[in-house]
Amino acid sequence: MGSHAKRRRHKAAFSRRTPPGAPPGVLVGDPSAPRPQITVFGLSAAGHEETEIRNTEAIPALLQRWPFVWINVDGLGDAGLVQELGAMFDLHRLALEDVLHVHQRAKAESYADVLFVVAPMPMPGRGWEVEQLSLFVGRNFLITFQERPGGDCLEQVRVRLRAGLGRARCLAPGYLMYALLDAAIDHYFPLLEEVGERLDALEGDILGRPRRDVVQRILDVKRDLRSVRRAVWPLRDALNTLLRDPNPLVADETRVYLRDCHDHVVQIIDLLENYRELAGGLTDIYLSNLSNSTNEIMKVLTIISTLFIPLTFIVGVYGMNFATDKSPWNMPELGWYYGYPFVLALMAAIALGLFGFFIRKGWIGSGKSGGGEEK
Amino acid sequence: MGSHAKRRRHKAAFSRRTPPGAPPGVLVGDPSAPRPQITVFGLSAAGHEETEIRNTEAIPALLQRWPFVWINVDGLGDAGLVQELGAMFDLHRLALEDVLHVHQRAKAESYADVLFVVAPMPMPGRGWEVEQLSLFVGRNFLITFQERPGGDCLEQVRVRLRAGLGRARCLAPGYLMYALLDAAIDHYFPLLEEVGERLDALEGDILGRPRRDVVQRILDVKRDLRSVRRAVWPLRDALNTLLRDPNPLVADETRVYLRDCHDHVVQIIDLLENYRELAGGLTDIYLSNLSNSTNEIMKVLTIISTLFIPLTFIVGVYGMNFATDKSPWNMPELGWYYGYPFVLALMAAIALGLFGFFIRKGWIGSGKSGGGEEK
Amino acid sequence: MGSHAKRRRHKAAFSRRTPPGAPPGVLVGDPSAPRPQITVFGLSAAGHEETEIRNTEAIPALLQRWPFVWINVDGLGDAGLVQELGAMFDLHRLALEDVLHVHQRAKAESYADVLFVVAPMPMPGRGWEVEQLSLFVGRNFLITFQERPGGDCLEQVRVRLRAGLGRARCLAPGYLMYALLDAAIDHYFPLLEEVGERLDALEGDILGRPRRDVVQRILDVKRDLRSVRRAVWPLRDALNTLLRDPNPLVADETRVYLRDCHDHVVQIIDLLENYRELAGGLTDIYLSNLSNSTNEIMKVLTIISTLFIPLTFIVGVYGMNFATDKSPWNMPELGWYYGYPFVLALMAAIALGLFGFFIRKGWIGSGKSGGGEEK
Amino acid sequence: MGSHAKRRRHKAAFSRRTPPGAPPGVLVGDPSAPRPQITVFGLSAAGHEETEIRNTEAIPALLQRWPFVWINVDGLGDAGLVQELGAMFDLHRLALEDVLHVHQRAKAESYADVLFVVAPMPMPGRGWEVEQLSLFVGRNFLITFQERPGGDCLEQVRVRLRAGLGRARCLAPGYLMYALLDAAIDHYFPLLEEVGERLDALEGDILGRPRRDVVQRILDVKRDLRSVRRAVWPLRDALNTLLRDPNPLVADETRVYLRDCHDHVVQIIDLLENYRELAGGLTDIYLSNLSNSTNEIMKVLTIISTLFIPLTFIVGVYGMNFATDKSPWNMPELGWYYGYPFVLALMAAIALGLFGFFIRKGWIGSGKSGGGEEK
Amino acid sequence: MGSHAKRRRHKAAFSRRTPPGAPPGVLVGDPSAPRPQITVFGLSAAGHEETEIRNTEAIPALLQRWPFVWINVDGLGDAGLVQELGAMFDLHRLALEDVLHVHQRAKAESYADVLFVVAPMPMPGRGWEVEQLSLFVGRNFLITFQERPGGDCLEQVRVRLRAGLGRARCLAPGYLMYALLDAAIDHYFPLLEEVGERLDALEGDILGRPRRDVVQRILDVKRDLRSVRRAVWPLRDALNTLLRDPNPLVADETRVYLRDCHDHVVQIIDLLENYRELAGGLTDIYLSNLSNSTNEIMKVLTIISTLFIPLTFIVGVYGMNFATDKSPWNMPELGWYYGYPFVLALMAAIALGLFGFFIRKGWIGSGKSGGGEEK
Repeated sequence: MGSHAKRRRHKAAFSRRTPPGAPPGVLVGDPSAPRPQITVFGLSAAGHEETEIRNTEAIPALLQRWPFVWINVDGLGDAGLVQELGAMFDLHRLALEDVLHVHQRAKAESYADVLFVVAPMPMPGRGWEVEQLSLFVGRNFLITFQERPGGDCLEQVRVRLRAGLGRARCLAPGYLMYALLDAAIDHYFPLLEEVGERLDALEGDILGRPRRDVVQRILDVKRDLRSVRRAVWPLRDALNTLLRDPNPLVADETRVYLRDCHDHVVQIIDLLENYRELAGGLTDIYLSNLSNSTNEIMKVLTIISTLFIPLTFIVGVYGMNFATDKSPWNMPELGWYYGYPFVLALMAAIALGLFGFFIRKGWIGSGKSGGGEEK
Repeated sequence: MGSHAKRRRHKAAFSRRTPPGAPPGVLVGDPSAPRPQITVFGLSAAGHEETEIRNTEAIPALLQRWPFVWINVDGLGDAGLVQELGAMFDLHRLALEDVLHVHQRAKAESYADVLFVVAPMPMPGRGWEVEQLSLFVGRNFLITFQERPGGDCLEQVRVRLRAGLGRARCLAPGYLMYALLDAAIDHYFPLLEEVGERLDALEGDILGRPRRDVVQRILDVKRDLRSVRRAVWPLRDALNTLLRDPNPLVADETRVYLRDCHDHVVQIIDLLENYRELAGGLTDIYLSNLSNSTNEIMKVLTIISTLFIPLTFIVGVYGMNFATDKSPWNMPELGWYYGYPFVLALMAAIALGLFGFFIRKGWIGSGKSGGGEEK
Repeated sequence: MGSHAKRRRHKAAFSRRTPPGAPPGVLVGDPSAPRPQITVFGLSAAGHEETEIRNTEAIPALLQRWPFVWINVDGLGDAGLVQELGAMFDLHRLALEDVLHVHQRAKAESYADVLFVVAPMPMPGRGWEVEQLSLFVGRNFLITFQERPGGDCLEQVRVRLRAGLGRARCLAPGYLMYALLDAAIDHYFPLLEEVGERLDALEGDILGRPRRDVVQRILDVKRDLRSVRRAVWPLRDALNTLLRDPNPLVADETRVYLRDCHDHVVQIIDLLENYRELAGGLTDIYLSNLSNSTNEIMKVLTIISTLFIPLTFIVGVYGMNFATDKSPWNMPELGWYYGYPFVLALMAAIALGLFGFFIRKGWIGSGKSGGGEEK
Repeated sequence: MGSHAKRRRHKAAFSRRTPPGAPPGVLVGDPSAPRPQITVFGLSAAGHEETEIRNTEAIPALLQRWPFVWINVDGLGDAGLVQELGAMFDLHRLALEDVLHVHQRAKAESYADVLFVVAPMPMPGRGWEVEQLSLFVGRNFLITFQERPGGDCLEQVRVRLRAGLGRARCLAPGYLMYALLDAAIDHYFPLLEEVGERLDALEGDILGRPRRDVVQRILDVKRDLRSVRRAVWPLRDALNTLLRDPNPLVADETRVYLRDCHDHVVQIIDLLENYRELAGGLTDIYLSNLSNSTNEIMKVLTIISTLFIPLTFIVGVYGMNFATDKSPWNMPELGWYYGYPFVLALMAAIALGLFGFFIRKGWIGSGKSGGGEEK
Repeated sequence: MGSHAKRRRHKAAFSRRTPPGAPPGVLVGDPSAPRPQITVFGLSAAGHEETEIRNTEAIPALLQRWPFVWINVDGLGDAGLVQELGAMFDLHRLALEDVLHVHQRAKAESYADVLFVVAPMPMPGRGWEVEQLSLFVGRNFLITFQERPGGDCLEQVRVRLRAGLGRARCLAPGYLMYALLDAAIDHYFPLLEEVGERLDALEGDILGRPRRDVVQRILDVKRDLRSVRRAVWPLRDALNTLLRDPNPLVADETRVYLRDCHDHVVQIIDLLENYRELAGGLTDIYLSNLSNSTNEIMKVLTIISTLFIPLTFIVGVYGMNFATDKSPWNMPELGWYYGYPFVLALMAAIALGLFGFFIRKGWIGSGKSGGGEEK
């Protein structure tokens, strides 16, 4: 990941917070956030109505016409709208604040007659970016807030609603919430699959000829895994809260479905841990291969040096210029009849002896040992 | 393990999932899964009947004839069949979905009158592959689903039933479920035994002359241990659930047996952790041996270089061509009577001094020290 | 961080403690602590009064005049004052002792009619220094103690009170305490943001040309993270205590706000853990780069040595001075017609052979392998 | 530990299990297990009787004669005998199976009127081998099974019983069980003491001149610690169960003693963890010493090479044979009057300069720095 | 720490245990333990009496005269005395055994009318040695046992009692026990302060010129931290037990003080963990500095070798003795007019080229890179 992306992410974790010390529950919209698009689904066992609205005025009529209404707000650029919805449905100020200050941890909180759930949601086609999905569940309504309009994980739920599939079930309290959470959670699997492939590729590289950047690529994988883990661990707790706390807004038959959803999150966590250990193992192999490579290089250097340095010394000796004519003690070998062949033979003997030493040490031959040949 | 196997495994963890966002509880069979074979065991205290059936029509008659019926489905290729069984025995849609989407975590869930248990099961003779065993326990029936027909862990239970051993006991609620789970769990022990042998072999290799691939083989062992751990840890939780939650489908006397089963799983986990630490320890030995080997190689190189480089310098000096005839200061040593012997003696003295230095450093001799000789 | 700062910090953790074995509950002021400045806020739904007082005499009148009074003491240099306040509001001796012996862990304790909370608070503009904020909450009063006068995190709360924002809410039991804690906790985020930037800078350095001090800078980051963690973890427990223990001094509607506060602390802890792992990962990259660099250096050395040492040996051979005139066996090559070109060709052949060997080993070329070229 | 011992241990963990899938509760004796020796202690407040019996026929008479009877079976070679005892005292089939399939985890289970306890027990004088002690506690009997006859930890309890010490107390339910468990647990301390001595010896070796096998010896220590840990951890849980679960077979006054026993086990676990960290620390020292040694060797090599390689180059220059008579440009230095002294002086100057460089780098002198001299 | 101290410590952990299998509750004094000195404090709200007694005969009179009596026994050399006190105050045999077998884990146990507390206590002025403080708390008495007479942590409590400070409070059940425990715990802080200073010194050394023994000194610090941790962790649990379990021997107002005491222990544990991580970080820095140093040494070696080895080869070439007079192909360069300057220029060019290579690699210059210069 480029350092630009990282910078943005750091920023993201902080920038939309109100300044430290600001009064709690003050709704400050991020001016750079996209303008909201509002879609309303009116649902009954018999049919449905899907309308796009501009402001909140149309909502009371819809609430009267349909037994259940799902209001989806795409884009958080209008704090006033959030405020209005809050007033209309009696939503708590702190929850509304959490909607606007995205990058919250997943949570499930009950306020009087409303259940508030925050869930991080992958954005299909945008890699590892995670968007905050905020849900308010009431007796006859569900309000969802997403950070940005466009290509979200919830489209398939809409398709099913339009087709009338499971529309009746959605009238049960909390079922539509479950369906949306399940859709969001399911989109983590392709991300993990991609990690699996990156790790496979890394393993191939490491066992072949590793490039220098291997450790960094492993680190990138770990970073991505960590970012998913940070999103998914709190999600598990939030689902646990939904499962355990009795709440009339979640029917018992819906709870069975939420248990399934919880199982999926646990499975994601399992996979995350597995990949994390895998990534750690790859680092180990890489470093041990590096040590092995250094060891092998050292061995070549040592063999060559150990072989030739003594020989070079010997030829140096007979390159000295002592005056053989001034003393019979001065390098008489130079005048021997077989002087040169003798020296060559001596050097050959030394070389052979050193070879034997290397073989005994296991540095040459058999393709094994601490720094054996590659083939 | 080859990368092919790994690829398949990654695939396996994902491929049979319904696409993200699909409606929950929709039963989509994997078209590549084998066609199901259905075997039915009718059991009474007095006798038994074993029939292979083609479709679900024969089942109602069997249920009337026998106080207890075990239906085993081998192969998940027919989603319709699963649907029919679900309708006949009033099984929950989500549970049926879990049957078809194999690679679930082990779990035990109670739905109204039915207990649903998922347990991963080793496949004898297929190495580390794990198959999903799904069980539905009712008042007078047990339905099991396996991924593939053929050589499974449950055969010995069938043999015992045919021989009439413990047939009476199997009429107690939950006992047959226990017997099947116990049989599945017992098949993990040979896998662990094999790991033990691989680790022994690795240790032998490392203490002898380690090959380059040692770290990778250790990693493979860890990977296999991890895959068993991922299967067995949730199994422990599932058994705990069965042990603790009161449920009329599990008789108290059966609970004693499940406790035994739980003990076996804990024992498997103990062994897994033990092997994991062992594998970690082997990596440590290997890397420390590698460091030792590098250290030793360096020592040889240093001894040889340190010994000969100064000597080579000296012989180089007396190989210079300064004109001795032009000045009495120019290398008069060359003309000395004992010049050559003197230089040889000088070099011998230097060599001896360096030897003493090496011995004092502990680099030569005594077979010990940070990089001592091997023998 | 300089060693001076460290020394001071160690000192801080110990120096203001009473000597071991001193009687419990004895109030010994630190003579070097700043003289206290006392500010009193009288609050009612209708208005407020802010006065600076010199001693405690004015307090009873204020308590009568206003339904709620917030007394803020800045500076712990006057143990007598603390004692007087303790007597006036019936505060427990041990709690008063904790006020004076700063560097306590965060805690929330209930004494009869008073709630006592200790929270570490960052000091804006003083880096990683943390100050102890002690709060006593009673039915109609809140007393806060800070270590030093001047620039604190609580100023924004005062600003809001003066402006009348949320003044009514502050009459609810515990709400003002929440507001102060929230303000203090919010000031941890800029610290974390700064850590994020330091880690980004470190990563840039490591992937470029790391300086020697990288490991130490990473260690400094870890140290700072640890110091925040030591402050924040107990804070989480303290907030949990406030959330869970029923206490008439914390209204139920206030509890919702405290839950939000608790969420922020958990988010800080998440970020801390994330940065800690990031810092650990950077150390790994740095060390692996170092190994890589050593490996690469070794490779250059080995290539050069392996290439030239044999050649140098050969030229050494033909630099020997055997007397060619005394024997036909003595270095006849020197007299060959093509002797010199032959030797040059021989050396070229050897060099080419070694080059081939290096390429086969992957030490030269293709920009890859365990210690490939940088580009 | 030799690989033979290891192999045996692996075997041990698996071999006596019934084959996977065997029916539960089937008692299959290990044919290689020693034939049982049965000793019966009849106990009353007034006296005792100790008899060795051949088969179970004599037991009913003893049970009538004495208020409390302790039956000790040494050797598990006779499954029939175990079966008979089981029938006589109404012991559960699964418990009997656990008696025969040794290498169970420690556990305490209550069956109707019988308490069943399994505890691993060191074998004095047999090193790290652990034997399974199985106890059945009833209203008026205690049955113990040991794997092998001879030298066990329980002898001292017998000695005390014979001497009449505490005989009365043994009539309290569960007290004799406690006495036996306490005796078994006390025998772990000498094992730990031995580990302490091995670690001391290892530390001495590492700080002196470490031999190559140090890492492996540390690993052996860790392995032994792990094997004790595997035995002792479950024991703690089993004792906790005995302490907490109300059971008429364990009197309240006996519970006080069991608490003491539990404290001993916790103390053993503390020591184990301590030794484990110690062993880890020793590995660290060893590896850091190895790095230090490599660093030091490199330094010697570098000093020598850096010193002599440039000098050797210089003498090589003046060993060239350029024809001085053919050109005044060809090595006129050779003919200078002070040529030779000049070159010697030049080389001395270079050597001194390099020495200064080494000292500035901290490679020579002061006995400190990253790779300082040993003394 | 010397190995003598270590040996003694190992011994200490084992030697005073009764031999394995000895009957429980047998009081065997350590013959080498110092003879006991007994001091008795009689306390009432009005006054106090402090007497030194020889044997237990004087105690009943004192118990009658004073509402509360504190008996302090310094030295465990007289098992008979312990037995007598046990009989007089009805103390449990197992507790008395724990008094004599020092090196128990901290614990708090209630026996009928007596509370038994064991706490490890630092010995001021004796470094890291820890002594066992055993306390028996009854309705009107407190008995303490210390291992050795002289300089203990409790002196300041005595001073306060003599001065009459808090004497009244000490009549509340359990308060004196609290005061003693608090005094003992407070003495851990100077030990930790000393560790802080040792770590500061180590850090200074490591960032300057580390000596070889740094890793071992870090290990010693870790060992000391571990020994304190082993003493303090169980203490926390014991204090928790005292805080939570209702017991008439600990008044509610005393419980508030014990909570403070518990906070101190948790603070000690926090500091321990902090120092432990600090020590771990120092090891990392040290090892990374060592790697850096090796890398730098290698770089110098490589630069020198790479620079001079090719040049030495060249001068070697022109030192060959091919007979130029026998063939025009034999080293004609030797006879060139500018032969020598040409060769010098060639070598200068090569040297420059290599310099450029080194600079491009970042091995020379800019004070940065993986093995940059120190300054």
